[in-house]
Amino acid sequence: MKHVAILGSTGSIGTSALAVVDAHPDRLKVVGLAAGANAEALAAQVVRYRPKVVALAQGGSGALSAAGSALAGTDLHIGPDGLLAVATHPDVETVLCASSGTAALEAVLAAIDAGKTIALANKEVLVMAGEVVMEAARRRGVAVLPVDSEHNAIHQCLHGRSAAEVKRLVLTASGGPFRSWSAGALRGATAGDALRHPTWQMGRKITIDSATLMNKGLEVIEAHWLFGVTRDQIDVVVHPQSVVHSLVELRDGSIIAQLGVTDMRLPIQYAFSYPERWGAAASRLDLVSCGPLEFHAPDLERFPCLGLAYQALEAGGTMPIVLNAANEVAVEAFLCERIGFTAIAEVTAETMGAHTAAPAATLPAVRAVDRWAREYSRALIHTRAVEALRIPS
Amino acid sequence: MKHVAILGSTGSIGTSALAVVDAHPDRLKVVGLAAGANAEALAAQVVRYRPKVVALAQGGSGALSAAGSALAGTDLHIGPDGLLAVATHPDVETVLCASSGTAALEAVLAAIDAGKTIALANKEVLVMAGEVVMEAARRRGVAVLPVDSEHNAIHQCLHGRSAAEVKRLVLTASGGPFRSWSAGALRGATAGDALRHPTWQMGRKITIDSATLMNKGLEVIEAHWLFGVTRDQIDVVVHPQSVVHSLVELRDGSIIAQLGVTDMRLPIQYAFSYPERWGAAASRLDLVSCGPLEFHAPDLERFPCLGLAYQALEAGGTMPIVLNAANEVAVEAFLCERIGFTAIAEVTAETMGAHTAAPAATLPAVRAVDRWAREYSRALIHTRAVEALRIPS
Repeated sequence: MKHVAILGSTGSIGTSALAVVDAHPDRLKVVGLAAGANAEALAAQVVRYRPKVVALAQGGSGALSAAGSALAGTDLHIGPDGLLAVATHPDVETVLCASSGTAALEAVLAAIDAGKTIALANKEVLVMAGEVVMEAARRRGVAVLPVDSEHNAIHQCLHGRSAAEVKRLVLTASGGPFRSWSAGALRGATAGDALRHPTWQMGRKITIDSATLMNKGLEVIEAHWLFGVTRDQIDVVVHPQSVVHSLVELRDGSIIAQLGVTDMRLPIQYAFSYPERWGAAASRLDLVSCGPLEFHAPDLERFPCLGLAYQALEAGGTMPIVLNAANEVAVEAFLCERIGFTAIAEVTAETMGAHTAAPAATLPAVRAVDRWAREYSRALIHTRAVEALRIPS
Repeated sequence: MKHVAILGSTGSIGTSALAVVDAHPDRLKVVGLAAGANAEALAAQVVRYRPKVVALAQGGSGALSAAGSALAGTDLHIGPDGLLAVATHPDVETVLCASSGTAALEAVLAAIDAGKTIALANKEVLVMAGEVVMEAARRRGVAVLPVDSEHNAIHQCLHGRSAAEVKRLVLTASGGPFRSWSAGALRGATAGDALRHPTWQMGRKITIDSATLMNKGLEVIEAHWLFGVTRDQIDVVVHPQSVVHSLVELRDGSIIAQLGVTDMRLPIQYAFSYPERWGAAASRLDLVSCGPLEFHAPDLERFPCLGLAYQALEAGGTMPIVLNAANEVAVEAFLCERIGFTAIAEVTAETMGAHTAAPAATLPAVRAVDRWAREYSRALIHTRAVEALRIPS
């Protein structure tokens, strides 16, 4: 019986993780649940899974009263610090980090220090603090198992193969909803257009990142940290069918790929069961009906965010933090219709241009750069808005 | 430095193996060479590689005189028994069995008894004597590494995974040159048509087997012996591009695939280098230009040979020997234009129908059934020819 904690339990990945628990009640026990603001859903989860420790980041003291007597004896935390309590609870063995954004950073580091296995579904943790996190995991002898379908695929393809055997990793990208849109059409793309992702059902932020290919860019940076490969060893190929989840080219030219249906329960279960492998948590892939599988080179001119991510990885140190923070601010502005689709890359690039990469070896350093980049990009967006209001002379 | 012997050194796989040796002169040394009848090519190989032991199955005592002084000090064998001397030479570590047909059976068993690693590129060895060979290898603790691209792919996909993790193996088939031919057109298909294989350059026998899908059927039987899986765990999917060389579905629904260019140097080098992996022996696969990858269900009505192979595996014991022998005789007759394309399956099915499966646990038992099936199918073909000459009343 594996004891798991789920950070971000009411989100898309969190609910899929609970479906995996439901499929394996004899193998998985939910010990901790942490959510952001969705008190209603969290209360229902508390009633159902009876965790020992529960956290709700935003809410009043009675926010979980709907859970009633199920809360009796529960270690309950209301407020942002609860994430850390759930991640480090002594009964927890594996922490699934599925909360979005940067809030999970401290919790993941604390969980590593407490010797927990990390199942990682949050991009920011490695993009912002890859060096700090991976160094801590190495020192503590803790496994960081990727839940992102692409990195999970690479983990499965590698299956213990040494770095010396690997020539390059190839991350597949669906190409998003704008794969075949012209540069001109992209300038007029709306949030509604971007949120219609062709193959994966995901949250809003990641769906926009998927449309800009920034999602793939962040994954390139993650892959660097997870698998210890250089920038030149990570390629991206557009694969609209999302059947091949990623590939590894070995030094003799042989390529190992992982294929499957687009269902996050698969990588989540893989991380929960590792190094074992359990029975099917999702439907099987039908090779014959999954259609011809296509592979295209990504177009960095129409989708400059991917190139920006490579630049950030190349610059190293704090630059990926700037990339991530500026992008997050820009995507938020795009979702609120304050900037256009192509401005996401422009704001990110301009913020990166204003920054000089420095070492990112401590969490305070990471946080400071993150704050600066958010402020800078917000100001940029504000300036653009003001300029747009000016009547052309 | 690995010391290798190549059985069938002048054939298609043999010459590819020597190209691998050429690419890794610091890692591979040719200690033994055995050929069938091509004295000229073998003499040139002797001059170039200076093996310690050489065998030519068919030829006079002076057949290799072209090798001149390179033969001095060489352990030279003219006649069919030389194969065994090459396979068991004390300096040999790995034996690549690339000679076609059934002649290699005794040599492979002797090599296993002598503790040599077996790199297996000959189908008949396992189809005829899978039980005998795998049991001998298990007892002696000898590895049997598949060189056939499909089984080699599966070996790479498994990469030490336990049988308990495996749901099924999926062998890919190019579908051969007749993939889209109608049943009517197949009846008129000629040897010339069949020898135009779309993706792989191979010998004549295997190319015809590829056109009938018998090649895939034999591979299903081989896979059973190599990987210890049941008939129900081995599927075939038609994949005309031959880019995905085979796949393994794991018990959670995840599929691991191996992809690469269609170049036999890759699986040969894999077997020679295993458990290491060396630098590229062939060109790299370009995912973007290799075109959409299609997968179709095989059509057992137009290509009944595949179904016959499943039937033979199901019947077990000596039945695969009958399948293989009758098919070999029928393919020979087809290549000589004595029977039509669709008669290959008919002759094989009829011969199988006349046989009752019995245990195939000893080599004499295997040989006896093989002889019977060849005689029976030759008689069948003769009868058909006589009947065809009769003027319809």
